[in-house]
Amino acid sequence: MSDPLPSSRPVRPSRLSVNQETVKQWSLPELAEGCAKEGIGSVGLWRAPVQEYGVERAARLMRDAGLTVTSLCRGGFLTDPSGATRARALDDNRAAIDEAAVLGTDTLVLVSGGLPPGDKDLVGARERVADALAVLGPCAEERGVRLAIEPLHPMFASDRCVVSTLGQALDLAERFPAHQVGVVVDTYHVWWDDQAPTQIVRAGAGGRLHAFQLADWITPLPAGVLLGRGQLGDGCVHFRSFRELVDATGFTGPIEVEIFNEELWSRDGTEVLRETAERFRTYA
Amino acid sequence: MSDPLPSSRPVRPSRLSVNQETVKQWSLPELAEGCAKEGIGSVGLWRAPVQEYGVERAARLMRDAGLTVTSLCRGGFLTDPSGATRARALDDNRAAIDEAAVLGTDTLVLVSGGLPPGDKDLVGARERVADALAVLGPCAEERGVRLAIEPLHPMFASDRCVVSTLGQALDLAERFPAHQVGVVVDTYHVWWDDQAPTQIVRAGAGGRLHAFQLADWITPLPAGVLLGRGQLGDGCVHFRSFRELVDATGFTGPIEVEIFNEELWSRDGTEVLRETAERFRTYA
Repeated sequence: MSDPLPSSRPVRPSRLSVNQETVKQWSLPELAEGCAKEGIGSVGLWRAPVQEYGVERAARLMRDAGLTVTSLCRGGFLTDPSGATRARALDDNRAAIDEAAVLGTDTLVLVSGGLPPGDKDLVGARERVADALAVLGPCAEERGVRLAIEPLHPMFASDRCVVSTLGQALDLAERFPAHQVGVVVDTYHVWWDDQAPTQIVRAGAGGRLHAFQLADWITPLPAGVLLGRGQLGDGCVHFRSFRELVDATGFTGPIEVEIFNEELWSRDGTEVLRETAERFRTYA
Repeated sequence: MSDPLPSSRPVRPSRLSVNQETVKQWSLPELAEGCAKEGIGSVGLWRAPVQEYGVERAARLMRDAGLTVTSLCRGGFLTDPSGATRARALDDNRAAIDEAAVLGTDTLVLVSGGLPPGDKDLVGARERVADALAVLGPCAEERGVRLAIEPLHPMFASDRCVVSTLGQALDLAERFPAHQVGVVVDTYHVWWDDQAPTQIVRAGAGGRLHAFQLADWITPLPAGVLLGRGQLGDGCVHFRSFRELVDATGFTGPIEVEIFNEELWSRDGTEVLRETAERFRTYA
């Protein structure tokens, strides 16, 4: 399979949304200014830097720069069974929903959480995520926000996210209304899965494809494996196939590039932004 | 879920087979002597140390120590499309089949191989594995050896094994007779997969459950992720559930403990062997 597919049509460049983690070296004002200068109209934001800057202030900054916020990362971490920890997690997710609403995005990305210490019961942990979604779904709906369950690569199943596949994410999401709970398709996490194409169709048909994110798979993985994502084109993900699968469901939304990579973070932000936009046009 | 299940029955200790990688610090004679001394009757062997020692000589060493060889690791690496590389890979697998036969084991573990450099086509790579199995299956049958496809954790999909789940492994295996091609269930690789229980039943029903291996999942993963396996009980795999699932299919074979872990390799081999046997009785 050559890459990109010669028969396929290039992506509309304006669909690019740059997740702020891709240019983590930038402050929020630098991100706003840099994106505006490079003609990038959309960004995905993370809670910690937004909270640090001030949520209302960040919302104003993005609005003033003409930027659309396509998602907020992340709520979740809902697997702890203990009463107090669980109550705190639910409160934190309610706060995340509010923050998303203030930022003007309708999509809050949820990372489910891993196994609590000493716990070996993945099924039980996934059930606790479902219980939490039953509480949080209506809260999100009230604020015009959709909860988007992100399956993470199975290498994160124990310590970060007990939801490892799109199939599992949809099994969870489908217990709730589609305008409350859907899924994120992130190529980094699902590229290896032969069931992903079928599950993308399923997500689209149910109106549950809430967000689409890109990062490449490169090896060797670094210790801890969290920061091993690759710039588009540097690895083995066939982005155009995924984009065409997603588009074929009727999805016309933004496509976020979200890369955690220390080498990218050590470079000039504008250079990374330009490279990302170019790779997006070439590979997505 | 507590561990072990209070209601479940302990494993028969004699089912323990120690894969030589678990005590990689030992030479083959040390392995033979150490296992004999500790009353462990079965071992899984690897090709490189066996070839270095001499295949016939290793077979005799194991026989003389009263040890059964439960599997040979590993053939495979069948994804390269180029004529010469592919021919070499097939020759190497024929040699591996011969070695298995000489060692008196009926099980050759196959690791499929990753994506060739620059290749992004997982489906095509898996098809090349199938093409190779069509050639190798009859060779194996002639020597009384079964090919056991081992799905590796999806974190190895690009650089080591394009077969990532039991479902995929069975899709491949079922194109061939069950006495030629089956699968390995290794808890380290499949523990996260909610489809694994169903696929274990499928493997058992088809007579394709050729080998059962145990290692625990621990984090953080080390750089390169290959040597991150945990001693039984140190991580989050619920071994007894898996063992009972496997046994429920009618499987009564050996259970190999195969742990790649530098900390274990730095310790005294006898101590590791005793600990492994004890953990096996407690958790399997």
